[in-house]
This record gives sequence, structure tokens and C-alpha cells, in this order.
Amino acid sequence: MFNFCACVNFKQETSDEERRRDASIRKKKFKKSLKEAYNVPLTLVSPRESLNYREDRIINLDVGDPIMYEKFWKKMGKKATIVISGWRYMSYLSGGQSLCWFLEPDLCQQILRLHRVVGNAITEGRYIVIGTGSSQLILAALYALSSPNSSQPTNVVSAIPYHSSYPSMSDDLKTSVFKWGGDATTYEKDEPYIEIVTSPNNPDGSLREPVVNRTGGKVLHDLAYYWPHYTPITAPADHDLSLFTSSKCTGHAGSRIGWALVKDPEVAMKMVNFIEMNTIGVSKDSQLRTARILSVVSSSCEQAGSSEYPESFYGFGHRLMTERWSRLKQAVKHSGMFTLPDFPTAHCTFHGQQTQSRTAFAWLKCEDDEEDSAALLQRHRIIGRSGVSFGSEANFVRVSMMDRDDNFDSFVQRISKITRLSED
Amino acid sequence: MFNFCACVNFKQETSDEERRRDASIRKKKFKKSLKEAYNVPLTLVSPRESLNYREDRIINLDVGDPIMYEKFWKKMGKKATIVISGWRYMSYLSGGQSLCWFLEPDLCQQILRLHRVVGNAITEGRYIVIGTGSSQLILAALYALSSPNSSQPTNVVSAIPYHSSYPSMSDDLKTSVFKWGGDATTYEKDEPYIEIVTSPNNPDGSLREPVVNRTGGKVLHDLAYYWPHYTPITAPADHDLSLFTSSKCTGHAGSRIGWALVKDPEVAMKMVNFIEMNTIGVSKDSQLRTARILSVVSSSCEQAGSSEYPESFYGFGHRLMTERWSRLKQAVKHSGMFTLPDFPTAHCTFHGQQTQSRTAFAWLKCEDDEEDSAALLQRHRIIGRSGVSFGSEANFVRVSMMDRDDNFDSFVQRISKITRLSED
Repeated sequence: MFNFCACVNFKQETSDEERRRDASIRKKKFKKSLKEAYNVPLTLVSPRESLNYREDRIINLDVGDPIMYEKFWKKMGKKATIVISGWRYMSYLSGGQSLCWFLEPDLCQQILRLHRVVGNAITEGRYIVIGTGSSQLILAALYALSSPNSSQPTNVVSAIPYHSSYPSMSDDLKTSVFKWGGDATTYEKDEPYIEIVTSPNNPDGSLREPVVNRTGGKVLHDLAYYWPHYTPITAPADHDLSLFTSSKCTGHAGSRIGWALVKDPEVAMKMVNFIEMNTIGVSKDSQLRTARILSVVSSSCEQAGSSEYPESFYGFGHRLMTERWSRLKQAVKHSGMFTLPDFPTAHCTFHGQQTQSRTAFAWLKCEDDEEDSAALLQRHRIIGRSGVSFGSEANFVRVSMMDRDDNFDSFVQRISKITRLSED
Repeated sequence: MFNFCACVNFKQETSDEERRRDASIRKKKFKKSLKEAYNVPLTLVSPRESLNYREDRIINLDVGDPIMYEKFWKKMGKKATIVISGWRYMSYLSGGQSLCWFLEPDLCQQILRLHRVVGNAITEGRYIVIGTGSSQLILAALYALSSPNSSQPTNVVSAIPYHSSYPSMSDDLKTSVFKWGGDATTYEKDEPYIEIVTSPNNPDGSLREPVVNRTGGKVLHDLAYYWPHYTPITAPADHDLSLFTSSKCTGHAGSRIGWALVKDPEVAMKMVNFIEMNTIGVSKDSQLRTARILSVVSSSCEQAGSSEYPESFYGFGHRLMTERWSRLKQAVKHSGMFTLPDFPTAHCTFHGQQTQSRTAFAWLKCEDDEEDSAALLQRHRIIGRSGVSFGSEANFVRVSMMDRDDNFDSFVQRISKITRLSED
């Protein structure tokens, strides 16, 4: 998920509280530092858009903006185009019979179809709840899984390194329903809790299972990256509550569509109520577009190798990711300053062969524990997100692997030139 | 705004707390009561969609679903159609330079143009913040205008009859930042407050100004209905924070697009931060579609009477509303059971003549104070929203005037048949 504030590498602070405090000051600092460092005009807008594509441009790989998939969608041409007449889909309501009253039946069908085609999740006996991106669904799930009548807020925990937005999502609303409880691996309170399990994990790509495992605890599985371009599909996910998002599944972050597969109808209904109170449903236009996009993805998988679909979407994504990871590993080796996590190889039921994880982010670790990796990258005009934002150390930095080719190319070139010699 | 739970007319309860408690039970009751009363299959879905258009069908006018405007948009044909290729608008980011980093420049331009054409709001010196419908913007504004470091939550108040969702929006998140403070006209606490001023008001169409007017108080103007099909435009609105929504402005509720005009950049930035945390921006697809729709509305106003635009959108809306109100008034007169509010006449700068308010909801009052008006309508297979939901009495009921012709026709017919004789 997106965290504009984390674009800037701010100095390590000692507590979670301090780190999250006063995001606006950090944002201002970020603007100021970029302005001073590079003397470029900068408004409160993405650096990608406001800067020109010069050789010495700043490359913003802080956000996991999945635009490398543009190339695939350009090839798909009209098959992936939607047309919406002015008089269609004006109502708040959908035409469906779903518990989620604002879910468009077409999208529901295409979500079910895609999971069937890919084999990454059991959908039988699940309710689908649609959300404005998975961030809204995380909030809805925290709300639905909490114990609102408890005298204390439910603790939201996740194992370090956790997604940088989980603490602020849990705490910024200052609700008495839930609060951020920190690292799941050291959680010892005898209180209600929800563990968020992101697998493959953002930022480090590791495969994860719940770690607290206490009676009465709730688990929320964020499976945004459990798709065959990122990781081997070893079995269909079979959890109480799983989240997916089209941002990472197809690359359409701008549509803000996510979905949850929910076993318990009471929980699903509470999530629907939250989304109703929050935004009175989810954009029909984006639901229709996502239905079309998912339909093309499924067809590309079913008919891969045909004249219409020379390659499946996940075949394309996996091939591109494999190339990129290979180049990054070479660059990192050449640099000698960093290491990358090792990823397991497993039999992927989708690809029908052994594949290795090719995650959406590189989790770079500087072997010098004293080094602030995000600051180091920033000196080379690369913006990554500091490990501190993920509850980890400043010698880690997360970098998106999903940007356009030209930005990825420059990133790899610059990484290969960061050597001990250049930094001493 | 939408409140599914309020579809059912539940018995008057004595406190706000009781009334809001346990929405799921009310929802179940609603389903059960409809099932028993009419022996129709009913899933958790809009009654409109699940029931057939039989003579004795249930007419759900609880929700302000603005689909009567379909007719205009059908006439607009291809001018109002959008086409989005699969590879476009994939990024989280927009190409703009706005403080609201996820606002599409096209939409920004069309919002400014429409306010200029209609003359209903000053946009100079305002920041535009886009939201997933105005409900998200209300939450964002409450968050931005509150005093988070105060020891107490900021009180959210609004004069009775207030919009039925304000109490739950203020309280359901159980945040310590703000809480529902009740009727603005009786508010006397010496604490921070935000007054929501809806003008024209939902449910009763009255024109409103702030009533608390105390130093340090904040005012949030919900101007969803300040458009020339509903009310005379007497002057451009000039407030610190005003909200608009395409649901009521053009009839496109399904797109979930609202916008705020905000004077203070700090407040605007806090709203942007809230929306970023909540949904990481707003659907690009719906922003693009709304830009197109607003552009057609503006052109229809500028070129009204031409072969391309025989009538402006607001001319069409005002004409249709005038017809409907005239028919409803006759039916109410024939019935003898109800009264309707009187609306003022004023010079409308947009229409260039005297016009009378033609509001989007009828606020029916049963002259018998003991009567439960929503229950009375329900016996005639009309679902309205009880006055109790708006902080008012049960002898009031709100009914949407914006449904399709066939539903409105049946509604008027049934109202005219509700007489003292039929009820005794």
C-alpha cells in the first residue's frame, strides 16, 4: 500500500509512537530536502510526475506502483477496453443478490473465475466483500474482527518486518475498537488480538504463517502477492478471511478495487456495514473495469499460446520479474554493499513447474549495520522506503520492482555503482 | 446518503443510543417483515432489484437514489460515454500538481468550470479535495476539523431534522477525535464543536445557516443539493469548507465521487491524509467518468436550446421536479392525511427568473401526531425513512422524489388513496 509520508528517509527514531507522529512535518521535510538537494520545482505531487526524465532524475521507488504491467495491457488492445454510457450504473445499488449489496454481479463472477483458473484460493463457502482497495478492506476487517464491547481496544499485531501502513491504519483513527499492538513475534499480552499475516510478505517477500496462535485470536490474511507472477502457488489458500487487490494482481492500482473472501457471514456483514458507513459502497465504474480486466487475465491463462493470447498475464509477469531480479542480483553483487533475501523454490501448480519467488519489492540490506540504507540510496537519487518504517532497522530499505523499464534500468545501473570505494 | 438499515420502520426508541444500536437486528427484522407481509423471496439486496414490477410491488423510496436522471443521460448519447483502455490510468498517482495528489487534472478542471457556469460556489482561493462520495469527505472533514490533542472528542452537531447518517458517522468508528453531539439548536456545551449545515437540508429542504455560532466552532457546509434543479441559486457559496457530490449534482451515485472546496490548506492536507490512509486515493475510472459527465452538464448549460443540447441538465431536472412536486401536492391534498413543507420562492441567478425550491425528498408529516408515518406508508407498500432517524418525530417520514417514473407514479397513486376512511 501507499504511504506518501514514508517517501522521505527520516532519521531513525526510537519508538513506534515517535515514528508515526506528525506525518505532515516529515512530508514538508521531504519536499524541502528534495528541493535543496536537487533544486527542482516540487509541488505536493508524485516526484515521478513532476520531474523530467533526465539522466540524473530522481527515481521514486518508494511506492509499489505496479505500472510495469502497462506493456501487457497495451498488447491486449480492445479486449481490455471498457465503454460506459452516461446513463448506465447511476444507482447506488447493484443488480446482484449478494450479501455485499454494492458488489456488481459481473465482478463477483470474474473474481470466482480467476481464483478457479489460478488455483490460489478456495472460494466455496466464502462471501465476497468488495472494497475501495485493500486498505479499506483492512480497516473494515479490523473493525469486523474486533471486540467492540471489550473494555480495551483489540490489539493489531504483525511480525517484523510488517507493512509500513499497519501501525498508522490501526492508530490514526484513534478508535477505541482496535489499536496497534506491535510486533507479533514478541506479543505476550493476555488481551484480544488480530494478527495480520501478509504472505508473501511486504516488504521482504517471505512466506508467512500466524505466529501468535492463541485461543480467541483472529487472523487476517493479506494475500495481495499470492499470485503466480510473484510466488509459486502451492495450494489454494483456505483461511477465514483473505484479502486480494487488483493493484498487485493485474497492476490496476488506479481503480482502487480490492476484495475479501470471508467465511463467517457475520464478519462479512460487519465489513459491508463499515464500507457502507465509510463510502456507501464502491465505485461501479471501477468494478466494471476490473471485471473486464480480470476476465482478460483468466482468458489469457486459459488460452495461453493462442494467437489471441500468446502469453498468459502471469507468464508475462513472471518472465519480466525473473529478468529484473536477475539484473538486480548482478548489480547488487557488483556493488558489494548490499544483500538480498534468499527465496525458496517450489512446485507451482499454476505454472506446472518449479518456480522461485520473484517478489514485487527488493528488501535490500546494507551489510554495514551503521549505514542508513534509504539515505544512501537517496544520495544516488533513488527513493526507497527505510526499514524503520517496517519496524526493522535503518540498514534495510525497500525498493519497488514494479516501475517502468526506464526507471528500473536506471535504478539497477545506479545500484551497481554504489561501492565501498564510492562511499568512503 | 444511503442507510440500508433505515429501510425498515422500527418502533420509536427513546434515545439516540438505542436507535443506532444493533443495526443488524433491524436489518433482519426488515427482511422478516417484508417476507411475512408479502411472501416474496428476499435476499440481502435492494428490494427494488429483487422484486418484480408488479402492481402491488413494494416501492422503496427510502434511499435517495437519483435514477430519474437516466432519461437525460440517455438523450445525451455518445457525448456522455467514456472509453478507458486497459493500459490507461494504472498508477496510484495522478498527473496533476494538486495538493490533493490523487485528483485527476481533468476532473479538477471540470469541477471549476461547472461552478463557474452555475455560479453556486466561489472556487478562487480554494483547494479541491476529491473523495469516494461525500460520505468519505464528511469523515475526512470531521477528522481534519477536530482538535485531536484535546482531552475530549470534538462534538459533531447538526440542527434537527439532520441527515440520518450523521450520528452513526460520528460514533460508529468509536474514535476519540470526534463524537456525535446531537441537535445543534440545543447545543450548550463549552467544548470544541463542528456544526454540519446542510443547505438545502436533507430531509426537509429548508435553507439553513449555522445556529451555534460560537467562537472557535467549526462549520462544515454540506451543499449536495445547492444546484439549480433543486433550489434557486441566490449567490455563490462562500464558506471555509463546502461539500458537493456527483450523486445529487448529476445523478451518478454509482460513481461515488464527491468533492470539497477548502479554504485552509492545512485542513485540506489533513483531509487528503485521511483519504490516503482510508482508501489510498479515489477511483481514477470514476474521476474520468465524472469529468466527462460534468463537462456535458456545463456544455448543456452553455449551449441550452441548441440542436445538440435542446435543454440544460438543470432545466431538465427542474422541469421534472416541478411536475413531480405538483402531482405529489395534489395527491397529498386528495389524501388529507399529510402536509408538506412550504418552500420559498427566490430569484435564481442560474435560471434568470423566480423559482421555487423543488427538493429531492418529500418530508411528509402526518397531522395525527400519534401516527407512525413510515409504518403507515409501509402498509401501502411504500418504504420511506422514519422521521425518528432524522432526530425528529415518527409522524414524519422522508420519501425520495428521484426514483424512476413508474415507481414515482405508483407512489403518488398510493398516497392519494391513503385517507382517514381507508385507515380507520
